[in-house]
Amino acid sequence: MPPSSPFLADIPAAQALLAWFEACAEAGCPPRLPTERVPVADSVGRVTAAPVWATRSSPAFDSSAMDGIAVRSADTAAASETSPVLLTPNQFEVVDTGDPLPSGYDAVVMREHVHHEPDGSAELRSAVPPYQHVRSIGEDISAGELLLPEGHRLRPVDAAAAAAAGATELTVRRKPRVVVIPTGDEIVPVGCDPAPGQILDTNSLMLAAQAREVGCEVRVTPILADDPGLIAAELTAAAPDADLVMLIAGSSAGRDDYTARVVEAAGTLAVHGVAVKPGHPVVLGALAGGTPVMGVPGYPVSAALTFEIFGAPMLATLEGAPPPERAGTTARLARKLPSSIGSDDWVRVRLGRVGGEVIASPLPRGAGVLTSLVRADGLLVVPSGVEGHLAGETVQIQLLRPLGEIGRTVVAIGSHDLVLDVAASALRAADPRHTLVSSNVGSLGGLVALRDGLCHLAGSHLLDEASGTYTLPFVDRLFGDATDIAVLRLVHREQGLMVAPGNPLGITSVEDLTRRGVRYVNRQRGAGTRALLDAELSARGISSDAIDGYSREEYTHLAVAAAVAAGRADVGMGIRAAARAFGLDLIRVADEPYDLVLRAETVDDPLLAPLWALLDDAKFRADVEALGGYSCAETGRRIR
Amino acid sequence: MPPSSPFLADIPAAQALLAWFEACAEAGCPPRLPTERVPVADSVGRVTAAPVWATRSSPAFDSSAMDGIAVRSADTAAASETSPVLLTPNQFEVVDTGDPLPSGYDAVVMREHVHHEPDGSAELRSAVPPYQHVRSIGEDISAGELLLPEGHRLRPVDAAAAAAAGATELTVRRKPRVVVIPTGDEIVPVGCDPAPGQILDTNSLMLAAQAREVGCEVRVTPILADDPGLIAAELTAAAPDADLVMLIAGSSAGRDDYTARVVEAAGTLAVHGVAVKPGHPVVLGALAGGTPVMGVPGYPVSAALTFEIFGAPMLATLEGAPPPERAGTTARLARKLPSSIGSDDWVRVRLGRVGGEVIASPLPRGAGVLTSLVRADGLLVVPSGVEGHLAGETVQIQLLRPLGEIGRTVVAIGSHDLVLDVAASALRAADPRHTLVSSNVGSLGGLVALRDGLCHLAGSHLLDEASGTYTLPFVDRLFGDATDIAVLRLVHREQGLMVAPGNPLGITSVEDLTRRGVRYVNRQRGAGTRALLDAELSARGISSDAIDGYSREEYTHLAVAAAVAAGRADVGMGIRAAARAFGLDLIRVADEPYDLVLRAETVDDPLLAPLWALLDDAKFRADVEALGGYSCAETGRRIR
Repeated sequence: MPPSSPFLADIPAAQALLAWFEACAEAGCPPRLPTERVPVADSVGRVTAAPVWATRSSPAFDSSAMDGIAVRSADTAAASETSPVLLTPNQFEVVDTGDPLPSGYDAVVMREHVHHEPDGSAELRSAVPPYQHVRSIGEDISAGELLLPEGHRLRPVDAAAAAAAGATELTVRRKPRVVVIPTGDEIVPVGCDPAPGQILDTNSLMLAAQAREVGCEVRVTPILADDPGLIAAELTAAAPDADLVMLIAGSSAGRDDYTARVVEAAGTLAVHGVAVKPGHPVVLGALAGGTPVMGVPGYPVSAALTFEIFGAPMLATLEGAPPPERAGTTARLARKLPSSIGSDDWVRVRLGRVGGEVIASPLPRGAGVLTSLVRADGLLVVPSGVEGHLAGETVQIQLLRPLGEIGRTVVAIGSHDLVLDVAASALRAADPRHTLVSSNVGSLGGLVALRDGLCHLAGSHLLDEASGTYTLPFVDRLFGDATDIAVLRLVHREQGLMVAPGNPLGITSVEDLTRRGVRYVNRQRGAGTRALLDAELSARGISSDAIDGYSREEYTHLAVAAAVAAGRADVGMGIRAAARAFGLDLIRVADEPYDLVLRAETVDDPLLAPLWALLDDAKFRADVEALGGYSCAETGRRIR
Repeated sequence: MPPSSPFLADIPAAQALLAWFEACAEAGCPPRLPTERVPVADSVGRVTAAPVWATRSSPAFDSSAMDGIAVRSADTAAASETSPVLLTPNQFEVVDTGDPLPSGYDAVVMREHVHHEPDGSAELRSAVPPYQHVRSIGEDISAGELLLPEGHRLRPVDAAAAAAAGATELTVRRKPRVVVIPTGDEIVPVGCDPAPGQILDTNSLMLAAQAREVGCEVRVTPILADDPGLIAAELTAAAPDADLVMLIAGSSAGRDDYTARVVEAAGTLAVHGVAVKPGHPVVLGALAGGTPVMGVPGYPVSAALTFEIFGAPMLATLEGAPPPERAGTTARLARKLPSSIGSDDWVRVRLGRVGGEVIASPLPRGAGVLTSLVRADGLLVVPSGVEGHLAGETVQIQLLRPLGEIGRTVVAIGSHDLVLDVAASALRAADPRHTLVSSNVGSLGGLVALRDGLCHLAGSHLLDEASGTYTLPFVDRLFGDATDIAVLRLVHREQGLMVAPGNPLGITSVEDLTRRGVRYVNRQRGAGTRALLDAELSARGISSDAIDGYSREEYTHLAVAAAVAAGRADVGMGIRAAARAFGLDLIRVADEPYDLVLRAETVDDPLLAPLWALLDDAKFRADVEALGGYSCAETGRRIR
């Protein structure tokens, strides 16, 4: 492989993993970590390096399984309802649950079945079989039995059982030691205030935490410049004490991407480029001595998945334990999902249980969108041989959140509004079992999602130009005169033109958008805010062609505000709360209602009850109005 | 509630939890733990105590999404396949993925689509739309957006995203502090060699580990005697610095069970006795000041489940996070499962995927059988209103092991033999993804399980008295002349009479079992070892009635050996390896084959391939013969 080849290979993940294992073994990496003895109390989370055989039985003696009296069964043989047997005080002994069976006795009678006479004797009204209510020696564990196999990750019950079986120490694998090496001229540590062009080193933080989560000891080195000599020196220094080295960024084939050639020089380059998206530019190799090294791509989703697909299985194998595995579920795909042949596509999905079905909505697929992983409820892996899925297809999902929690989640799809975010957090604070998630696809997208059974709530603020009214005409159009659709007013909010502080271009109305040198940033098609602009333009007879930037689309109020704040555009339409978040000025255009559209039957669904209660809550309303530009005068009113 | 009432209440678990929460609140327990600020790198595993809003956008600048050149899209408008555009060196800039978009440029062309001329100019053969391959500011995170709600347990991706969004510290709940107080005159610390009647304190070890696993700081006090004054003093001392106190044992209603009355005296007794099996005698209350206290039953399965049903939800609520939740699956029940009305029955089950179906086999249900939890793959909760399930019914299981692992597990049901244990550990050591589990129900039970589709392998050593041959006649009887059954010889092993070292009673043959004063311990009906005894008796015309202890049944060789070793019986039949494990003498009775019976199609199932390879392995065979009494001369030979 030429050192600066711009083209990476496309090795299937399973094959890449095997090639990596082989390269490490050939370079001298032992197949398993060394063992150590640890006290059984400290063994939880560690992996057994030898079978655990019981050296003592548990219980170690016959004991009473009940509170009552210990008896000799032979003494009770004649007892019956009509002719009770009286045991004299020297024929029985009072015992509690767990007490050793006193010598000479072979059965226990429950306290409730004994009548004690005033003279101290005990009356029994039925015969007792031998060993009744006796917990036998070894009932739980027999000395000599195999309690746990080698290669078992110890849980609290395992440690307790091992102790009961006579172990005081266990032979386990040493914890894997991981060294994380961040590189890149533009990378600065978390905690810095990055200058323009600089990037915070959030990847080391994440990869170190991922490795710690699977039980590793982790060391993160200082950030290295893009200098192959420095990087090679750090690798050489790290190798002897590391079981895995993760070198972050520089794994692609750009001008400053040195990882592949440095690994090649320092040992064996096994893999450069895998058939995985995101996460294609991975480097896998072995350093001199056999230490596995992984060149991790710099895009955060790629980095996280690279650890999961390659790092975690390598670490589990070194520990001799099965690789971690997620729970799964089937789900119905909310929309068409194209996928290119030739790579496994790791698609992050939101899940919601709507109408009794689990629905999977794909999240943004960019390797740089870490929030897609933060917000994901699951992962959908489209294998390299599959050209995507159709809308409505049943797919297999790896769960990132328990299915029960997903069933307790209110799913809102539609227009973006900060009030939904505030509500989500307030609901969770009141009761951690409540979750509200909202996906921003614009008002029209939300209504379509509701129609297709993909959400509980559609947030909408669509203005009908003809009637001048909001939401209802669109509901009529999309759902016909279906009577099972309800509309609740969430809030009124101020929309306007967001401009840099002080309004340097002196924009005062929509007419000014056509001025030469004014760069607009728009919302996507189907967004209510775009419909509002269109209505304003059409009322004034202005063509959208006259506006520079009309075709540049962002998906949220905040993204538009960010573009203006960054100077990438001069003006964009949005709500006051978004302008305030970025310190922008707002030139008021309209006060508009923001509505929640839902199936009428959903109104009474217990899942929604906490949200309705919240909308009635005075503190919540005050919090909303404090955001700026909001009025709660009609909050919660059902308008259809 | 009278302090020494022998009768506990039967409060449903959900109601008990609510009563506990209310009692703690009334006694002054705040609904949530205090908050603290932690560096974002240390926040993983903690629960947010406030919403996390983004204070900066990520990326914080427009950047190149590709390796290539940055251009002004307007300069490229005229480019086409037939009339390329030449950009002079001052009309473009080379950029790598992630580089900030140089000032004045608005698009990127991929390296692969640029032809560099010798004079340094770049040839483009198509027009470039504005913002092509530009990663926008805020593509991942917009300043001002809600990144994480309150009440969210932070994962590595969350911490990385929070850092990217400008956070350096996060407001989280303080870690819960748990104090574990073991009590009981008979309890001795793990590490001691317990005297007869003493019990190792494995419960503290387990409960502390369970609490640590959910993120708590745990302190375990020394073991207290059964003295209400001492216990009360320890509770009072622990309360101010604890968020939860777990008092182990003494929670029932026996003579030394002080927990309920001590809690009542120290604060509020909210619950004594819950409708849960195992785990009935639970005490829930609040200490003065409101600290929640939990009286944990001493039986280990009860203790583990009490933490799970009451402790974990209390801790999660204090942290403001959703309670932990397990993945689930449906499974077909292997056999009838009776359950009493009035209590939730927490049944531990083994799971196996046999013939494409997940099969659940109930494990021993005793509260003292901790190994039932160790060996369990899942939990089946039979609610208090349900009178059990029928064999073959589809039931809902909470998974204790990933479903994928269960699918990779070879399930053996039948006679117990140590060789299967040795094989299980060897398979796991070679490849941690391989699991072999064996359940001991006797040879006949195994064949029935195979017939019913509950296992892959049935271990059998049944002697047919009439023909004097092993296994095959039973296979014929049970499966008719079905041709799809294969039989492989696993091993030959020595069976005999196990007696105390030195053979104090001078037993030399089966005849001696009828001698007065000789106490026998037998195996259960359907066990091959019992059939061997029966054949020996019948050959000699001895009636089983003549043997003292013939009706006393144990389920494994080791349990029989343990009974003899403990002096509870004088003699029992079993294999040499079991006798050796307990240091017993063995009077040889027979050499018998131990066979594996399976569906013929299973022989070629890839799941079994590692086992067949192991049976061929010389080291494995040597290890087996070293156990004593085994011969591998015919190991792996297919006899049908």
